[in-house]
Amino acid sequence: MISTMMSIKIKARLFSSADMGTGVTITPSTDQAHYLLKVMRAQNGDHVIVFNGRDGEWLSVVQTISKKACALEIKEQLRPQIPEPDLWLAFAPLKKSNTDFLVEKATELGVSRLIPVFTENTNTTRVKSERLAAISMEAAEQCDRLSVPEVAEPLSLTELITDWPKGRSLLVPDETGGGRSLKSVLETSIDDAGITPHGFLIGPEGGFAASELDALDKLPFVNRVGLGPRILRAETAALAAIACFQAVAGDWQQAPRFNNGYFFNARK
Amino acid sequence: MISTMMSIKIKARLFSSADMGTGVTITPSTDQAHYLLKVMRAQNGDHVIVFNGRDGEWLSVVQTISKKACALEIKEQLRPQIPEPDLWLAFAPLKKSNTDFLVEKATELGVSRLIPVFTENTNTTRVKSERLAAISMEAAEQCDRLSVPEVAEPLSLTELITDWPKGRSLLVPDETGGGRSLKSVLETSIDDAGITPHGFLIGPEGGFAASELDALDKLPFVNRVGLGPRILRAETAALAAIACFQAVAGDWQQAPRFNNGYFFNARK
Repeated sequence: MISTMMSIKIKARLFSSADMGTGVTITPSTDQAHYLLKVMRAQNGDHVIVFNGRDGEWLSVVQTISKKACALEIKEQLRPQIPEPDLWLAFAPLKKSNTDFLVEKATELGVSRLIPVFTENTNTTRVKSERLAAISMEAAEQCDRLSVPEVAEPLSLTELITDWPKGRSLLVPDETGGGRSLKSVLETSIDDAGITPHGFLIGPEGGFAASELDALDKLPFVNRVGLGPRILRAETAALAAIACFQAVAGDWQQAPRFNNGYFFNARK
Repeated sequence: MISTMMSIKIKARLFSSADMGTGVTITPSTDQAHYLLKVMRAQNGDHVIVFNGRDGEWLSVVQTISKKACALEIKEQLRPQIPEPDLWLAFAPLKKSNTDFLVEKATELGVSRLIPVFTENTNTTRVKSERLAAISMEAAEQCDRLSVPEVAEPLSLTELITDWPKGRSLLVPDETGGGRSLKSVLETSIDDAGITPHGFLIGPEGGFAASELDALDKLPFVNRVGLGPRILRAETAALAAIACFQAVAGDWQQAPRFNNGYFFNARK
């Protein structure tokens, strides 16, 4: 199947929540139609990759309806849905551009769920979840993921730890030098059944308050972890921790499917 | 020594190329004096941490000279110079803000040398090395490093590989799926003598040209490495690769010395 399509040029790669299957026609969102028709100048018959996070990835063909609207008729499956690492990232919102950046990079690095968390020293009091979801969707489309991370509604730190699911480990990078190295903590979390579900909690630029660290330390599912001798900015710590997770316990032993030969015009 | 200073408040942490030792007086640069006196409103007798990348880290005291000038009298050593990971990052310059970002984050993550490299698909034709050196110095001051990475003059890819030093491995993240996972490549580079010197080469957004990849593949010191199934942007690939290096083969088993109790007013 793949080998017959080496020379097909792909106009775009888009997420849609619609169910997918051969012969199904899906309707792009207004933004997606604008992007396809105006930005990418897609024409009738052009190829677009679509995915919904459940049914794998599909090749579709553009059917223009008007200057502003089009449909996508699904032709065939390119990849089945495969399991992806189960890694949550809870983070104190940063200055706007740093939060955008964090969401984009965490999506590229394969986080499954993003949770904004307000802590005592968090400078921001508002988070636009819709905006973060849009950034995350675009990053997922571009980086060839088969899913888009869920962007959760913001929580307080108390809500986060009260509702934290049983069986999921919460790793807190620690600048005070109290934690074991992240790599060694992850390696001891891997057994014959694979790795237990994990999440990272990244504090604000000002760090956690002493009372917050005390509360975290009392929780059986919390481990403080070390990211080396340098003091990392919050967004750097988040990305470095996620990269280490994917390398040690995630999916970095897998390769991109880029060598299948699809052309893909990146969105930016 | 350390224990007597738990309550000292540090106004700033500054790099200086001057030789350092007890009783030595050093002169901050014009920018540093402005920062100390105008931004941080340092006064006579205030404490400043200084380091030069050779002699460890020292506590100094501000001696005001005029409204615009001051000297720093060194009191005592806080930390000796310790060896740091020897990791080079050669990178194709990106759009301006992404290059700035890459240099800042690579410094935080402990790279020892930054080398801008022009490749066939590199969109930028100019790099302001002085600007990158300033960004790197500020990041090093903030992240508590004992050194500032060297920012090399830009090279062509041909110059880079022609002059590449003997005994240093060059790792090239590979989106075509041809490389072994970075973690496994690094683990096989570690023997009783520690890890061999390494460098990463990060291509431009457009990727390497086929002829460039062919040339790289012929070099005995080049290894293509995999960073997982997702297609990472150039700056994300660089930071993820460096983080993996530090976790697997670098200094992430070390902890920050933050718990020594020094206050440090971050520069931003």
